[in-house]
Amino acid sequence: MNRLFPVAFGLLLLIAVTGCRTPYADTVTQVATIDALLAGVYDGTVPCRDLRRYGDFGIGTFDHLDGEMVMLDGRVYQVPSTGVVREVHGPLTTPFASVCPFLPTIELELATGTDFAAAQQAISDRLGNANGVYAIHLRGTFSRMKTRSVPAQTKPYRPLAEVAKEQSVFAMAEVTGDVVGFYLPPFVKGINVPGYHLHFLNADRTQGGHILDFAVKQAMVEIDPLDKLYLVLPEPPANVDLGKDRSQELHQVETSR
Amino acid sequence: MNRLFPVAFGLLLLIAVTGCRTPYADTVTQVATIDALLAGVYDGTVPCRDLRRYGDFGIGTFDHLDGEMVMLDGRVYQVPSTGVVREVHGPLTTPFASVCPFLPTIELELATGTDFAAAQQAISDRLGNANGVYAIHLRGTFSRMKTRSVPAQTKPYRPLAEVAKEQSVFAMAEVTGDVVGFYLPPFVKGINVPGYHLHFLNADRTQGGHILDFAVKQAMVEIDPLDKLYLVLPEPPANVDLGKDRSQELHQVETSR
Repeated sequence: MNRLFPVAFGLLLLIAVTGCRTPYADTVTQVATIDALLAGVYDGTVPCRDLRRYGDFGIGTFDHLDGEMVMLDGRVYQVPSTGVVREVHGPLTTPFASVCPFLPTIELELATGTDFAAAQQAISDRLGNANGVYAIHLRGTFSRMKTRSVPAQTKPYRPLAEVAKEQSVFAMAEVTGDVVGFYLPPFVKGINVPGYHLHFLNADRTQGGHILDFAVKQAMVEIDPLDKLYLVLPEPPANVDLGKDRSQELHQVETSR
Repeated sequence: MNRLFPVAFGLLLLIAVTGCRTPYADTVTQVATIDALLAGVYDGTVPCRDLRRYGDFGIGTFDHLDGEMVMLDGRVYQVPSTGVVREVHGPLTTPFASVCPFLPTIELELATGTDFAAAQQAISDRLGNANGVYAIHLRGTFSRMKTRSVPAQTKPYRPLAEVAKEQSVFAMAEVTGDVVGFYLPPFVKGINVPGYHLHFLNADRTQGGHILDFAVKQAMVEIDPLDKLYLVLPEPPANVDLGKDRSQELHQVETSR
């Protein structure tokens, strides 16, 4: 009888290891939808630490819309509208976030002087498929970096397009750090942000935010092509109109400087 | 040393059992997007038998748009435009399908005479949340049931709105069977079909299709509230415009009689 234990042990070890492997490779997992956030659904639903289940890399915001999230190497950083970055350890939750396990397979370098729009074009030219889903990481030094963050809100919540008018804007110069985010295809409209959505965190982990513009001094881009989108929907807000087209609001919120 | 084996064995058994549990409970998994289908991307990408990984219940179509799919109790049925239903066993693939493990928690009865539109209203009244995701199963007898199916296509593929004009329509009377499908919220626009999308299969498994209309003789509705949407994206079609609003095309395709 005891002779069977090593065999059973080995078999179970195999099952445990293969069965417990993350099912989230090549998957961007998102909490809630951008249209709910645009409509003012700012109450956090998923603890930030639970995001690690789905990956080590991503972006989002926090309970009460309290700043911009950057997740890098499994650590979650909060860039509040005060600009004072902190690493998140406690029970803080998120109402909207997108994360993945980051396993890049494509690399390119951006030329000195490349600005935000030109960087997007260079990456798109390399990818060659506007219908793909990609996680994107830039590491480098930027001669200028312009970001924003949003102030924490109290109820009753106003729509994001109104709140974003009160955003803080941060201008950095000669800053080294990480750009973290995604390219998502046009058909995610209503669910997430079509196109490029990138957040920044400096190397000291003291400054960052949602990127409005930058100029590259030198930067390498790493890209992980994904092919699955996992949408985790919290208790759905029954009284929120998620039927209207919020593209214009989104464009305003994403790019207003 | 050998005394540790039972403990390790027990621990590993626990890990194996919990770790291997399906990650797809409360999840509708879909292959590709409705907008790709509307654009004429009809080549199958995922074998129908692989859909069982994600659930036992669902709807969809087949390689070359060869008919309407009904998945019930883990079996996949094909309703081609000839109207002759067959159960799918071989390597047939799907370009678009939505499936879930069906575990209903809500039940209601539909009054005699209730038509398709009134049934949708009755279900919506019971659910009370247009932003939720629900798998829906009706079992019953219908004094009339009107369905359609679409003919298999050859390349170059035309858009679905054109192809649907050549649909076959089936009118059944005093028919007993199963209605299988989903209610999806408005924000899935571009990805899946917002609102009710239901297919029919009679009790003999000889007739069925995409439902255009019905009248209930007696029917029970079972509903499984879901809270996750898992979007499995095949090699994305680079040359297909997935940015345009295809809502009008979709409405025409879903409801044209």
